[in-house]
Amino acid sequence: MKTYNNINRSEWPELCRRPQVNSTELGSVVNQVFDAVHNNGDTAVLQYTEQFDNVKLESLLVTEDEWAAGVAEVPLQLQAAIQQAKKNIETFHSQQVAPKIEVETESGVVCWQETRGIQKVGLYIPGGSAPLFSTVLMLAVPAKLAGCEEVVLCTPPDKRGNIAAAILYAAEITGVTKIVKAGGIQAIAALTYGTESVPQVYKIFGPGNQYVTAAKQKAFATGTAIDLPAGPSEVLVLADESAVPAFVASDLLSQAEHGMDSQVVLVSLSENLPGKVSEEIEKQLPLLPRADIARKALENARLLYFKSREEALGFVNAYAPEHFIVSVEEEDYFLNNIQNAGSVFIGNYSPESAGDYLSGTNHTLPTNGFARSFGSLGLADFTKKISFQRISKTGLQNIGNSILQMARAEGLEAHAQAVELRMKSEK
Amino acid sequence: MKTYNNINRSEWPELCRRPQVNSTELGSVVNQVFDAVHNNGDTAVLQYTEQFDNVKLESLLVTEDEWAAGVAEVPLQLQAAIQQAKKNIETFHSQQVAPKIEVETESGVVCWQETRGIQKVGLYIPGGSAPLFSTVLMLAVPAKLAGCEEVVLCTPPDKRGNIAAAILYAAEITGVTKIVKAGGIQAIAALTYGTESVPQVYKIFGPGNQYVTAAKQKAFATGTAIDLPAGPSEVLVLADESAVPAFVASDLLSQAEHGMDSQVVLVSLSENLPGKVSEEIEKQLPLLPRADIARKALENARLLYFKSREEALGFVNAYAPEHFIVSVEEEDYFLNNIQNAGSVFIGNYSPESAGDYLSGTNHTLPTNGFARSFGSLGLADFTKKISFQRISKTGLQNIGNSILQMARAEGLEAHAQAVELRMKSEK
Repeated sequence: MKTYNNINRSEWPELCRRPQVNSTELGSVVNQVFDAVHNNGDTAVLQYTEQFDNVKLESLLVTEDEWAAGVAEVPLQLQAAIQQAKKNIETFHSQQVAPKIEVETESGVVCWQETRGIQKVGLYIPGGSAPLFSTVLMLAVPAKLAGCEEVVLCTPPDKRGNIAAAILYAAEITGVTKIVKAGGIQAIAALTYGTESVPQVYKIFGPGNQYVTAAKQKAFATGTAIDLPAGPSEVLVLADESAVPAFVASDLLSQAEHGMDSQVVLVSLSENLPGKVSEEIEKQLPLLPRADIARKALENARLLYFKSREEALGFVNAYAPEHFIVSVEEEDYFLNNIQNAGSVFIGNYSPESAGDYLSGTNHTLPTNGFARSFGSLGLADFTKKISFQRISKTGLQNIGNSILQMARAEGLEAHAQAVELRMKSEK
Repeated sequence: MKTYNNINRSEWPELCRRPQVNSTELGSVVNQVFDAVHNNGDTAVLQYTEQFDNVKLESLLVTEDEWAAGVAEVPLQLQAAIQQAKKNIETFHSQQVAPKIEVETESGVVCWQETRGIQKVGLYIPGGSAPLFSTVLMLAVPAKLAGCEEVVLCTPPDKRGNIAAAILYAAEITGVTKIVKAGGIQAIAALTYGTESVPQVYKIFGPGNQYVTAAKQKAFATGTAIDLPAGPSEVLVLADESAVPAFVASDLLSQAEHGMDSQVVLVSLSENLPGKVSEEIEKQLPLLPRADIARKALENARLLYFKSREEALGFVNAYAPEHFIVSVEEEDYFLNNIQNAGSVFIGNYSPESAGDYLSGTNHTLPTNGFARSFGSLGLADFTKKISFQRISKTGLQNIGNSILQMARAEGLEAHAQAVELRMKSEK
């Protein structure tokens, strides 16, 4: 951890910098796997699963029996917790249903916009040290609410070829239609092209390592939409004397335990707070099972003291944090003026973990400064909007002359003709 | 043009295929230009403008005097037409303002979502044979409504180093903040990195050729958001006996004149209509100034006859047209069941040109099958949504145990600690 006082604006770019992920070297392996899956379908996916995940599978799909058996394995208390999370995520995301908008822009010119669910979506759930079943909820709940018809979940199997029971349970209660035992580039390629067992989808969601991220970029270039570019997770805690140092420390630590590349920033309006928080971190850190990871991540942590709230706000907006915890007395000033952040946690009793699991907001959020242009994932990301216009003959008379003017000024005579023909028609 | 009857579903993929654009070869020139602009700023942009656009500029920005002089050159009738278009686009897009949503998911757990404009956006307007000032309206009007603070327009200068007057006029009345005389890869690179005269932006919008499209993909990989992947424009007209063949022909032609790679499809529910439409095309085509381009595009046109409305609908959804003209008696069946389309034009008096210029809908639409996952560009694309949560101590007690369950099942003890510490606190 490094503490900074008297910060000059010229230092902001450096303080906002995230670790560079170099993705160019991944290009050739991504292309190779995509080509193989395009040409050989399931066979290629199975082959890469053996090569990369060290497990030889007979088939890619989780069978109904396997799925049911997994569901039954989940302890009742955990089931209840997952159900509560699901309920809250549903409550928040169902508020996001976009109303049909309609307006008569000119007499006889009626325009409206309707929303449709994306028919086929793919959800990527990373494997690794822990089964991230909470991400299943965050992706599958809005997919279902949006009316997506086919919801295909891909996740890498463990060494025995199984998928974690909690993932199967979360997928079951959220209406996932198929679970594919595949991870990494080969999973994204299968969703992009479709194979014998994996349906081709129109949009791919979900976090992943740099291979998955590079594969998603490739999918996008190939014609499949993606949600947002995923990078290492990050938190920025804004705090003053009203914050509880132990709470702040626990939030920084819960970010730090995610991974060694996690980004942890404290923006303090109190000069003493960084020291107190550091002490608390030292107290809490040794008790954590993932202390080594957290300690490594904290090496890059930045504890910043700003004298003025204007400078502090300016820095937060420049940093554009994925998670933004606001634990200050003058919270309204920051809430009203925050421009760039993924999800905001207010007060001493709103830890990031609440949004990661239970509050109802989505935990799929823009990282690496993308909060300047991307928002939190939500229902809208699983839908698209179609425009409609119904123009009467009178309506066309009302806008026709202007169309002729503009089309001809753009050199598009056939565009003008399509209107003039109708304006002159006797029908 | 090719006419198809008795179409088998197995032929759909071929009939839905768009011409492949091979973008891999562009990678090295895109990287080279990006690196040069990153390192040398304005100097590099000016150099490439000389190299690619054959014009040696002194500086990149349109000056105030230049801008005012251009505005004064636009004929009054065209000004009035542009003003009418602007008004209608404003009317339709201002309906799209997203309301704040707020819900208490559990007692003491209040979640809400607020919308913010993206602070800095870049608008790309292609050069070429005609000045596409209508696209300025389609991008700058929603940018302004969304509250974007910096709106930077890039467009290539003509051989004398000037920007078309109508573009300057459209930019003036829509509140564009800067106009940069640069096109192609160097323009996108300048918006991505920022230079001495060009501000770095957070999202880049607008159509362009394959160089611009490849550059936008690179911008996205570099950390700048983009609107949607642009491809050649396309129209699918659905028609039956109630359609006027001359109108249908004029719509197909107004698509065909865009470019030789434009996609033109007729889905007919009447067996005779394709013949009648072909005759009308032959009548209207020779009168067009861009007849050569249109004739070339029509070589790939497909006139399809479907016996059943179900098959016709299925095909339209599989094709996912950018523009979808519905000129049939049973229009409700198609309007209710269309899943994949960018913008829909209903009835005999709603030509595509109306949406291109005046109805108020946006003409920036998904091509190349992307209508399966992307909608029409709209106000939302110039904004992002931030989630907020304010949890009271009681609220945390209500969801805390479930967070502990889930965090521990995911192996994230620090996440659990951040909650447990607060639940046990005396404060």
